[in-house]
Amino acid sequence: MNAGALHTPPEDRNLTRHETSVQREDRARVSGQRGAVLWFTGLSGSGKSTVANAVELRLNRLGRLTYLLDGDNVRSGLCADLGFSNEDRQENIRRVAHVARLFVDANLITLVSFISPFRQERRNARTLIGGDFVEVFVDASLQVCEDRDPKGLYKKARAGAIADFTGISSPYEIPENPEIVLKTGKENLDVCVDRVLDYLKSRKYIAP
Amino acid sequence: MNAGALHTPPEDRNLTRHETSVQREDRARVSGQRGAVLWFTGLSGSGKSTVANAVELRLNRLGRLTYLLDGDNVRSGLCADLGFSNEDRQENIRRVAHVARLFVDANLITLVSFISPFRQERRNARTLIGGDFVEVFVDASLQVCEDRDPKGLYKKARAGAIADFTGISSPYEIPENPEIVLKTGKENLDVCVDRVLDYLKSRKYIAP
Repeated sequence: MNAGALHTPPEDRNLTRHETSVQREDRARVSGQRGAVLWFTGLSGSGKSTVANAVELRLNRLGRLTYLLDGDNVRSGLCADLGFSNEDRQENIRRVAHVARLFVDANLITLVSFISPFRQERRNARTLIGGDFVEVFVDASLQVCEDRDPKGLYKKARAGAIADFTGISSPYEIPENPEIVLKTGKENLDVCVDRVLDYLKSRKYIAP
Repeated sequence: MNAGALHTPPEDRNLTRHETSVQREDRARVSGQRGAVLWFTGLSGSGKSTVANAVELRLNRLGRLTYLLDGDNVRSGLCADLGFSNEDRQENIRRVAHVARLFVDANLITLVSFISPFRQERRNARTLIGGDFVEVFVDASLQVCEDRDPKGLYKKARAGAIADFTGISSPYEIPENPEIVLKTGKENLDVCVDRVLDYLKSRKYIAP
């Protein structure tokens, strides 16, 4: 029995932690890319998920490591305990931002697709994630989104069946200084995807 | 203005989602490995973090993609709102299990290092994560852990300064059927790391 086999003397612990654990640059060496968060924000129906999925698919075909966080995989799991009150929506975004931070630390190109209508919550995410936060404003007018209404939600919101619906009964605060603006009402999908990829290349997150 | 540019007809949506989004097998193709969760459980001082860090380092040197979830990166961020009551500790583990599930879906070898003393919470994590959940019991006796006491926590717990301390004033429920048992009081670190790597190879999570 060797009680000390795995024991690190306290005075060595900080040093040892750094030297014996995998750091972000070690992951980058393995994967040949740098982690970033593409934070897609915009009205319901603006095309966030469509663009995010198309960007992810293109990156995967380039051999890049990606992950998409959206309502489908977050709301049903990590945030299944949360509803849609303003408080719960803010807690949802707080958790998503923290998970995105872990994914960036894991060195993945991380795509986040939530309406995230409030400047303050996006600002918090930016502060948390730091220099690798890329705000992508998926900019389609309310008129365009309501005409599309892919899930029939605007119709329900107009009928008063959904409370606090962004754009109808709750504000969408337009990004003040997003890294990328995609006019999905005017530009087609391939153009939007190219713009995002060009950004990632220009900032050396992926090879040109 | 083209209101329908990004609009998918409702009847095509399930099909389209699958065909236009990156699935787990697409990520596996890029990375040449299969995602798994190595869930390290054991008493404070048993060597969970030491072994987990050493396993991660070895995997990184083999060019494998990994991520370690532990108190250092989870407690200060995603779970910063939680304390150490039994309820909060269970919520902490619930969130960790959900995040680990996302990382497995992202196809990473995901290492989780928390005491996680209760069978029910580990069972919940196993159910959630499914067949890729690998329970690693870091098995050192209370005597060994207390002799090591690397953070001086046992001394404080014995003095009554820490409530609900696992092994002293709160139970540690020994895993009933863990995939891997590491006797860190008897086996040295390299032997422990080899055992975990052999398991991952034998189950084809990484190449032999």
